[in-house]
Amino acid sequence: MNKEITSREQDYSQWYNDLIIKGGMADYSAVRGCMVIKPYGYGLWENMQQVLDKMFKDTGHQNAYFPLFVPKSLFEAEEKNAEGFAKECAVVTHYRLKTNPDQKGKLIVDPEAKLEEELVVRPTSEAIIWNTYKGWIQSYRDLPILVNQWANVVRWEMRTRLFLRTAEFLWQEGHTAHATKDEAVAEAQKMLHVYADFVENYMALPVVRGVKSPNERFAGAEDTYCIEALMQDGKALQAGTSHFLGQNFAKAFDVKFSDKNNKLDYVWATSWGVSTRLIGALVMAHGDDDGLVMPPKIAPIQVVVVPIYKGDEQKNTIDAKVLDEILPALKAAGIRAKYDNDDTARPGWKFAEYEKKGVPVRIALGARDLENNSVEIARRDTKEKSTYSLDGVTNTVAYLLAQIQQNLFDRSLKFRDEHITKADNWDEFVQLLDTKAGFIAAHWDGTPETEEKIKELTKATIRCIPLDNPLKDGKCILTGKPSTQRVLFARAY
Amino acid sequence: MNKEITSREQDYSQWYNDLIIKGGMADYSAVRGCMVIKPYGYGLWENMQQVLDKMFKDTGHQNAYFPLFVPKSLFEAEEKNAEGFAKECAVVTHYRLKTNPDQKGKLIVDPEAKLEEELVVRPTSEAIIWNTYKGWIQSYRDLPILVNQWANVVRWEMRTRLFLRTAEFLWQEGHTAHATKDEAVAEAQKMLHVYADFVENYMALPVVRGVKSPNERFAGAEDTYCIEALMQDGKALQAGTSHFLGQNFAKAFDVKFSDKNNKLDYVWATSWGVSTRLIGALVMAHGDDDGLVMPPKIAPIQVVVVPIYKGDEQKNTIDAKVLDEILPALKAAGIRAKYDNDDTARPGWKFAEYEKKGVPVRIALGARDLENNSVEIARRDTKEKSTYSLDGVTNTVAYLLAQIQQNLFDRSLKFRDEHITKADNWDEFVQLLDTKAGFIAAHWDGTPETEEKIKELTKATIRCIPLDNPLKDGKCILTGKPSTQRVLFARAY
Repeated sequence: MNKEITSREQDYSQWYNDLIIKGGMADYSAVRGCMVIKPYGYGLWENMQQVLDKMFKDTGHQNAYFPLFVPKSLFEAEEKNAEGFAKECAVVTHYRLKTNPDQKGKLIVDPEAKLEEELVVRPTSEAIIWNTYKGWIQSYRDLPILVNQWANVVRWEMRTRLFLRTAEFLWQEGHTAHATKDEAVAEAQKMLHVYADFVENYMALPVVRGVKSPNERFAGAEDTYCIEALMQDGKALQAGTSHFLGQNFAKAFDVKFSDKNNKLDYVWATSWGVSTRLIGALVMAHGDDDGLVMPPKIAPIQVVVVPIYKGDEQKNTIDAKVLDEILPALKAAGIRAKYDNDDTARPGWKFAEYEKKGVPVRIALGARDLENNSVEIARRDTKEKSTYSLDGVTNTVAYLLAQIQQNLFDRSLKFRDEHITKADNWDEFVQLLDTKAGFIAAHWDGTPETEEKIKELTKATIRCIPLDNPLKDGKCILTGKPSTQRVLFARAY
Repeated sequence: MNKEITSREQDYSQWYNDLIIKGGMADYSAVRGCMVIKPYGYGLWENMQQVLDKMFKDTGHQNAYFPLFVPKSLFEAEEKNAEGFAKECAVVTHYRLKTNPDQKGKLIVDPEAKLEEELVVRPTSEAIIWNTYKGWIQSYRDLPILVNQWANVVRWEMRTRLFLRTAEFLWQEGHTAHATKDEAVAEAQKMLHVYADFVENYMALPVVRGVKSPNERFAGAEDTYCIEALMQDGKALQAGTSHFLGQNFAKAFDVKFSDKNNKLDYVWATSWGVSTRLIGALVMAHGDDDGLVMPPKIAPIQVVVVPIYKGDEQKNTIDAKVLDEILPALKAAGIRAKYDNDDTARPGWKFAEYEKKGVPVRIALGARDLENNSVEIARRDTKEKSTYSLDGVTNTVAYLLAQIQQNLFDRSLKFRDEHITKADNWDEFVQLLDTKAGFIAAHWDGTPETEEKIKELTKATIRCIPLDNPLKDGKCILTGKPSTQRVLFARAY
């Protein structure tokens, strides 16, 4: 166990922060609720972006960029959306600072530089984008528009947590426009599956694909599809959402198109996004008391080589072997490899450091190993160490990376499946929440009031109605009223 | 000549806007001074980013991300920097909107949600980054820090122009920290050469590498290195800058390190950036009266194939040939190819469209061409059309792309070299500015006052003192005082 890191048992929340700060992923900043993403954390985000961006392009989307600022009059045009975000908006009111006449070297806001109309820093971009699409769409020939944006957004959250909930965060937001309702619904669902594929196959994190209850919908959406993951403390985390927006934004911004018969109709819309929050999910889902555990496919460093030596002669011999043979072979195989021959740190310190950073595979190479033509390889997920022949070390590493990727997914899946439990009445429900946690599959009478009441009483919310949910009659756990299907409840991040 | 596009001769400024708007690169937005970068323009930016990002990583830099907002107290810490940007800052003063009690469905800024300290939307990130570096640097072992950030920044410019000068723009900003002055100066110069390599070898645009006079330095820098390009109207454009910041920011944020002898000293700094402004330079440098001209290496579409047919049978035959053979072969060779078989537009319209978009190579393929096993290929730069064998069309396209890339550079270089002119006295100087324009190499007495006076009288500024400038005594064109070298003057964007 790493002494720098609080154990999960001791303080789960502190453990999470320790992993991020001491693993070198991010730092707190001088700006309330905003963080600094350090190179190691940003390297992970770049790998995630690269995979997602290719998935978006492979499904026909193009990237574009829209303004950071939304004039207040546009922001308020779609009323539900505006209402949903109004309480957490950063607002620009002035465009100039001036010298403080009372204090040399200090600045004050120049009262004469007040904007005629305030600008909202985008919390999401539907408003500014649909105002733009109005100019791009006249006929069915201009549809569909399949656009994605990589951007920063700001939501002035009162309680923030590194990666999971920050005032500013990085994300991508897809915004598409369609001629028919069916096509828009299909797009929203397609992108949900793209997200699920990414999170499961690259982040090694199983998700439930579902649809939100009306209470949990995105402000301005007709339907919100979501993927929900389970963290090690039994709390759920919404990992991505995809919204069918109906014609709400088209109506708010008067975006009509003429169809093949020259009939005018409002355009149908979707939007969908995932953010740096996914990094928080990854940390919480795979980490252990020694630090981060990175899924190999997106790990910034997949394998680190640490030399074990006494004196310059041994070091030079090992350096030559690694720099001339092992590292080039690993890199040629597309493996992200690092050699840490820093002379000022000891091997034991380095081992702990790369464990903390969650590097999937560690190779230790000593003078005697070289004589024996062998290496010691440790895997981060199971902590197993084994000795392998130096011949074919690249294949060994590639094999282990694939094994680790699969193992992380399998153990998360096992944990998740063990933590979906049925509750048939209120007592069972409450007891499960406080003892086992996880997803609780329970009947609900389908009303927002009941959902709200359950949230008040237990802090549990309906995470989703799974897409493949079987219909089966039952009685609502709170009201006893008839229900047609179980839904998944959980306490959530 | 394309009728949609104003000619350069008629109205150079309108010509520039036409190329961008009608070429599908960008749109004006509802936000004053901000633009929408459309997929075609953003595709170009992505290609530029990809090349630059690799260059930064190959020179040892890593990406990271710092907050969008700078608290006013940090912003004002480095006085010269603050003074330089204070007049054009977007300032966030509130964090909430609320329902307007007087007007249903409208929002107002909630006066109770006033921030205790205003936040400046970053115009550049030295302040927030050096405040962060303070926590990262204790000893020489923590140095150098070689970090880059891809981000949006906001400068509230009074007069804006698409790409060249917008209130919000996209850029990268490198921020490095070093133990010695020499190392920091070397870094600033190294990154200037990286920029010059990129602009010359990918954007096909020759640049002068130089250093700014004190008047034109970045606010807070000890020295600003720059690359300057020449546009077709004879005005100069600053295409990138790299700053040696001395210890100014380390002093402002109290960032010290202990050297090998445990002696404390302030850290040395650089910063360097290029932005979406480069796209403006590309448009102005290479475009003609028919539209954009994209340098092949970064063109979003390198080759477009247009079918010429009558009736479905011919179309199907050509479709099959292109989709089954030509396109896959081009893509396999790493060529960004598009097939436009949209049935609702005529070939002539498509030809004009892709000329407007500056696609370097166009292939026209008709039924008779197929019979003859030939294609007609047009190059965008020279408008030459030739018939080639269909066999080896991929090699032909690759060859033409390389030719076009070289030709664009060569003709820009020729134009640039023809537009560096010596002026030996004031009359010559003024006359040159108004007739030939371009860079004017002239003696200057080295004082800020003279530079300022020349700017007032002529709107020309010192663009740079070239890095390889020969020392040669002369007399200042304005004051007649002694001068040790010629410097490059120009009117500039």
